[in-house]
Amino acid sequence: MQNSHLSALRAEMEKRGIDAYIIPTSDFHESEYVGAHFKARQFICGFTGSAGTAVVTAKKAGLWTDGRYFIQAEAELDGSGFDLYKMGEEGVPKIREFLEQELPEHAVLGFDGRVMNSSVAEEYEELAGKKNGSLYVKEDLVDLIWEDRPAMPATQTWILPIEYSGESTASKIGRIRKKMEEAGADWHLVASLYDNAWILNLRADDINNVPVFLSFLLIGREETTLFIQEQALNDTVRAYLEENQIHVRPYEEIYEAAAELPAGSAVMLDKHLVNYRIVSSIPETVNILNQDNPSELMKAIKNETELKNTRIAHLKDGVAITKFMYWLKTNVGKIDLDEYSVGQYLDSLRAQQDHFLDLSFEDICAYGPNAAMMHYEASETQSAVLKPEGMLLVDSGGHYLEGTTDITRTFILGPISDQMRLHYTTVLRCNMALANVKFLYGCGGLSMDVVCRGPLWALGIDYKCGTGHGVGHILNVHEGPNGFRWRIVPERKDSGIFEEGMITTDEPGVYLENEYGIRIENELVCMKDEKNEYGQFMRFENITYCPIDLDGIDPDELSRREKQQLNEYHHMVYEKLAPYMTEDEREWLKEYTREI
Amino acid sequence: MQNSHLSALRAEMEKRGIDAYIIPTSDFHESEYVGAHFKARQFICGFTGSAGTAVVTAKKAGLWTDGRYFIQAEAELDGSGFDLYKMGEEGVPKIREFLEQELPEHAVLGFDGRVMNSSVAEEYEELAGKKNGSLYVKEDLVDLIWEDRPAMPATQTWILPIEYSGESTASKIGRIRKKMEEAGADWHLVASLYDNAWILNLRADDINNVPVFLSFLLIGREETTLFIQEQALNDTVRAYLEENQIHVRPYEEIYEAAAELPAGSAVMLDKHLVNYRIVSSIPETVNILNQDNPSELMKAIKNETELKNTRIAHLKDGVAITKFMYWLKTNVGKIDLDEYSVGQYLDSLRAQQDHFLDLSFEDICAYGPNAAMMHYEASETQSAVLKPEGMLLVDSGGHYLEGTTDITRTFILGPISDQMRLHYTTVLRCNMALANVKFLYGCGGLSMDVVCRGPLWALGIDYKCGTGHGVGHILNVHEGPNGFRWRIVPERKDSGIFEEGMITTDEPGVYLENEYGIRIENELVCMKDEKNEYGQFMRFENITYCPIDLDGIDPDELSRREKQQLNEYHHMVYEKLAPYMTEDEREWLKEYTREI
Repeated sequence: MQNSHLSALRAEMEKRGIDAYIIPTSDFHESEYVGAHFKARQFICGFTGSAGTAVVTAKKAGLWTDGRYFIQAEAELDGSGFDLYKMGEEGVPKIREFLEQELPEHAVLGFDGRVMNSSVAEEYEELAGKKNGSLYVKEDLVDLIWEDRPAMPATQTWILPIEYSGESTASKIGRIRKKMEEAGADWHLVASLYDNAWILNLRADDINNVPVFLSFLLIGREETTLFIQEQALNDTVRAYLEENQIHVRPYEEIYEAAAELPAGSAVMLDKHLVNYRIVSSIPETVNILNQDNPSELMKAIKNETELKNTRIAHLKDGVAITKFMYWLKTNVGKIDLDEYSVGQYLDSLRAQQDHFLDLSFEDICAYGPNAAMMHYEASETQSAVLKPEGMLLVDSGGHYLEGTTDITRTFILGPISDQMRLHYTTVLRCNMALANVKFLYGCGGLSMDVVCRGPLWALGIDYKCGTGHGVGHILNVHEGPNGFRWRIVPERKDSGIFEEGMITTDEPGVYLENEYGIRIENELVCMKDEKNEYGQFMRFENITYCPIDLDGIDPDELSRREKQQLNEYHHMVYEKLAPYMTEDEREWLKEYTREI
Repeated sequence: MQNSHLSALRAEMEKRGIDAYIIPTSDFHESEYVGAHFKARQFICGFTGSAGTAVVTAKKAGLWTDGRYFIQAEAELDGSGFDLYKMGEEGVPKIREFLEQELPEHAVLGFDGRVMNSSVAEEYEELAGKKNGSLYVKEDLVDLIWEDRPAMPATQTWILPIEYSGESTASKIGRIRKKMEEAGADWHLVASLYDNAWILNLRADDINNVPVFLSFLLIGREETTLFIQEQALNDTVRAYLEENQIHVRPYEEIYEAAAELPAGSAVMLDKHLVNYRIVSSIPETVNILNQDNPSELMKAIKNETELKNTRIAHLKDGVAITKFMYWLKTNVGKIDLDEYSVGQYLDSLRAQQDHFLDLSFEDICAYGPNAAMMHYEASETQSAVLKPEGMLLVDSGGHYLEGTTDITRTFILGPISDQMRLHYTTVLRCNMALANVKFLYGCGGLSMDVVCRGPLWALGIDYKCGTGHGVGHILNVHEGPNGFRWRIVPERKDSGIFEEGMITTDEPGVYLENEYGIRIENELVCMKDEKNEYGQFMRFENITYCPIDLDGIDPDELSRREKQQLNEYHHMVYEKLAPYMTEDEREWLKEYTREI
């Protein structure tokens, strides 16, 4: 099979004398997930995962992705002309090492300057410099060859009322201006769509399952300008922005605005988030203060309104997924079920909940060996049939007016092997160990990740991803700076210190290729515990309410402390959910939250 | 009470127009422990702990030290005119913050350039710059006022034979030259006394309990020069150095040698270890490559000879301390015992062991409330009497020709409270959790420390120090780059990745001021475990052989897994030690290593 997109790209590269062209997974804002318009990397190589970078030279074509996607990428790249480079594996070169080897002297290295953050772009600049070569960044070559490319998204924005946001835009901008003052910044350029939505208390639908809108924000000491597409604003939102003294300019004008920044002024921005074309547009007479957006930490620390509401969102979500669990476990083997259809049913249960807005990501309903792919997605045409045996992994979540959820349960559909039971019980022990940890203020996920992995590592098993991520509030379901990971991955920026009010997932798992996958995921709110002569102790509050399938557990593997923790969790789950269940469901729930 | 040393120092400062004078705890080599000659900080303020920095201005005098020493420092500073600044405590300024506040514009900041590492000195340089001031570093002011200052140590060096070192000096220098080549260095200046002793396979006695000798080493691509005091060398060692083509120059000439480094050459050195006077002497035309000494990591990874021998050293050490335990527990309440006398008895048991060289540090024998001071030292005149109740903490170790040991046991001398029992059992749980951890290659102590602290943190208790440190091989009992600590403390340089062959202590504890102290310390060798698709797993081998006092344990607090681990450990201890015990001791040992 010939990959015509790849050959077309190579032809365009040759015309321009480009030796290598890089296509990252990105819009102009470093968003994790991107709309169809921005799926250039998928267009060129066929790999549909959310993370990965394609690199094309005249002779070679490679896709770099991480452990979550190895199995999926191998399948999707088949016949594409692209080789898979498994990031983090021994002996696998990093993109820069690859380029350093492949690029000739005086090489021309190309990419679209808008889809590459300036921090990474500057590394490529350095690399090109080493080769006495240059960058070619003024054109999006994929755009030239992508005939039926979908249009840029431009959905309608809407206002998240103060009863749900808990803090006004004026207050948020006020806090940011204080940070600007501390840093000596006259301007602050915000490219992150999540941060912009949070600051402005606006939401939209420009990215599937991520209720944001394409925009840049330029905050001055006195004035604020929003760069946004005309179509995204209706009169209500315009009036709201005006009230908040926020000027509106067309989306594309951010590059001009960057170029117009006054000489001698200082602009604070995060080069990991602001694209290369913007940073290159800023005059050399402007001082760039490269640092984290203050809003990154601010939005991760949920305020009391957000926390109170998030617990409500989780209650609704728990009702939906527990009704699903009841339905699934009582019907499997009796009616026709497949991965796709049960996912649809789960979606309908969520949609019935009050104030439901959207799924927070596409469900992962993965049966048997499919669950070994961490980010497997069934489709109407490709979907495994469920049998009354083995395990079904369901990772799903919703956006509600009250907040965002992310939960994984692995359901036991019938007989499972002893090894499955051991692994299931061990994943639960990992999950509970982390949920139960009491720690001194100052710990980041780096210090605590091994607490979770310990029981699996003892069996010689690991999962090739972080243990958990921060959860955005009606924003991206993945956010930093909180997370659990045993090694720092600098570009993830998820090794921050845990602050009161942060919400983080706790999702250890076992993934055995061609066999099965197990993941149990709850969300944890970071809370203050006692403060004494040793310092401020912190703990987690578990806010995910849904039974852990007791059919998968070997009680002999659990210590007395672990049993007690599980029983207390199940007791809480029953108390929370029982009022919303039918009589049959309630009876079943009683059984599935029983003490062991 | 008037501190005459302090007023004398202030007089000297005033003569020279010095606004603040800093006296760190250091010789010219950044050694952790220093000989009597170098105890300038103790001379000026009276604090005898191993870590701490004194800062004197015209009006204020402060001592900064860390959590291990808070209780001791408070007592020793009483009446000295020095205030205690508790490092790491909330609201306590760091030295630089203190100086920034106290120093006037155009301030002169002084210290002896030889006792300050250049990394820290450069920060003071910057601070003085901020104040448009200057540094005064050419004189040791304490030397001017210290009338009966002890002489510089200059003990006799001796050769550690290859059967004990496991690697020749030629091989070690060869490996270092490879690293120099990789770094593009023409020269490598080694100031660390531990590294020099390791590289040269020489030992001496210049620091109490640390068998090293004052020296600098300048390794070129072809030649090596040792800067050492004349008296330290006898004919045998001279011949050995000659064989190894190592030139000898007087110790003080390192400053000239630094000044003579050829223009355009590159010298590799670690600014954290090389003193400011040396670095200031290096011509500006020489390129300084500031990086870790390659020998730092090399010496931490024990070779097979060292590992095999270290196990033998631990066996001898275990015999001594177990005989001590038997004697202590059978005699307490029957004969007169106090902290000092039992320490002397323990030392005599160690000294009876074959190939015993020295204690690896001064014993800590601390009874009752004294054990709450992590580094308490009893003396002949100040020593608590032991009663058949409560607990005695004994932290001790030895240097043998085969290697170095460090062990802590807390012995139960009679009835203890329920709280003591809970804390004792919890400390044991912490110790065992870390010893038992299986982990993926790539973990440093930062990722694993919380595994140890977890059970104590669950009770709202912490210990204000790292969980463990690397152990030198007939060198400093504390060494990096391995260690267990939940937050990076950059100057400690103990957050390295665990490599096969590293030896690290595992020593959690509970320290309740005015009540009691508990610490249980074993040493762990890092070993390879299985390698599979997830990576290279690692584990620890416990090489400390001595019973954990079962009289302190509440078995109900231990899980099945924990009981099993303890029983297996005790089984090993019995098997190892029984052959070296008398019949009475053996019978007792059987009882104290029984299954629970």
